Amino acid sequence: MRMRNKPWALDFLSEHKSFIDIDESHQLDITSRFKKQQPIHLEIGTGMGRFITTLAKRHPEINFVGVELDKNIMIRVVEKAIEMELDNLQLVLLDANHLRDYFNADEVSHIYLNFSDPWPKNRHEKRRLTHKNFLKQYKEILKVDGMLQFKTDNRGLFEFSLEHLNNFGMKFHEINLNVHEMESPENIRTEYEDKFSSRGNLIYQLKASF
Amino acid sequence: MRMRNKPWALDFLSEHKSFIDIDESHQLDITSRFKKQQPIHLEIGTGMGRFITTLAKRHPEINFVGVELDKNIMIRVVEKAIEMELDNLQLVLLDANHLRDYFNADEVSHIYLNFSDPWPKNRHEKRRLTHKNFLKQYKEILKVDGMLQFKTDNRGLFEFSLEHLNNFGMKFHEINLNVHEMESPENIRTEYEDKFSSRGNLIYQLKASF
Repeated sequence: MRMRNKPWALDFLSEHKSFIDIDESHQLDITSRFKKQQPIHLEIGTGMGRFITTLAKRHPEINFVGVELDKNIMIRVVEKAIEMELDNLQLVLLDANHLRDYFNADEVSHIYLNFSDPWPKNRHEKRRLTHKNFLKQYKEILKVDGMLQFKTDNRGLFEFSLEHLNNFGMKFHEINLNVHEMESPENIRTEYEDKFSSRGNLIYQLKASF
Repeated sequence: MRMRNKPWALDFLSEHKSFIDIDESHQLDITSRFKKQQPIHLEIGTGMGRFITTLAKRHPEINFVGVELDKNIMIRVVEKAIEMELDNLQLVLLDANHLRDYFNADEVSHIYLNFSDPWPKNRHEKRRLTHKNFLKQYKEILKVDGMLQFKTDNRGLFEFSLEHLNNFGMKFHEINLNVHEMESPENIRTEYEDKFSSRGNLIYQLKASF
């Protein structure tokens, strides 16, 4: 998702350092940024943030981290976090390629990928967030019994992900090829999900561990 | 699929012993029943037989074996085999639970499961042809580089199969969540597939090896 560039984005984010780390050196330990020490769940690519803010509100017993590369989109997530007074959510302006620099080994209990960019061209395969180069990083930062949860409406990306997670040796726990049929109250629809489901797209989801 | 009982079914099948083995002792070596010694591909549950007879006609360089439990349905397969003068197809009236009694280890190069009974109730899980009890048998009779190919329109059975093949340690090679979108000329539609696809059902397919 791309948003119109907002020249004031970094200034805005800098004013809300209690919610977001925009320091590119990323020297800060994420755990130290939370008030309570409790399990960490991570969303990679928050988009506009409805998913992670809703989840954080529902689960005060968990610390949530939202990673997003685009500062213009991140403004929306910070706005939601302020409005909902969430003290168990921290945001990080970070490229998913640098996850391993930022998180410690075995620091995260759960990773969410929601409607990640499908990068449909074969030559861009390595940019898909379920490519093995990313899986290696997830494996390092996830606890041994940690879980990867992935949701998309993109059939090609979901087929690719089923094949590549399996080939990487991941174990599948739950696969759902039509999340909105008999929708679980646990499902939190992202902004994107609402829009594309209403156009008739199927929503796919899997849960897998290393 | 169930068909009306035909009291003359066994008599009919007995008259066509060059196409079908109905001997319940199954002492015969399947390889010895073919004119040429060439790789064996096996379909478990032929239904009315359009899939395996079409495939056998297209691939004279392969020996095909069709296994079906229901003698009333098997009549239709034998009729097709006669009409198409197939000398690379052998049929066996056999319960899939007894595959291992019939086939030798490493005898089969490829197994096809098409629109197998979904057995939707949890208590019938063990009857699904992708349950681990069946996978164990397939692993024994398949060659090391052999492939299992599975096609269905039943979402629940496909989700179950993705999870259970993965949990059994099988490696996925190809997953297709909508076989009829950009349909490959290699896809052979079964009688059932034509009927239920025309009602709007999606057709799913996977290929996996042990």
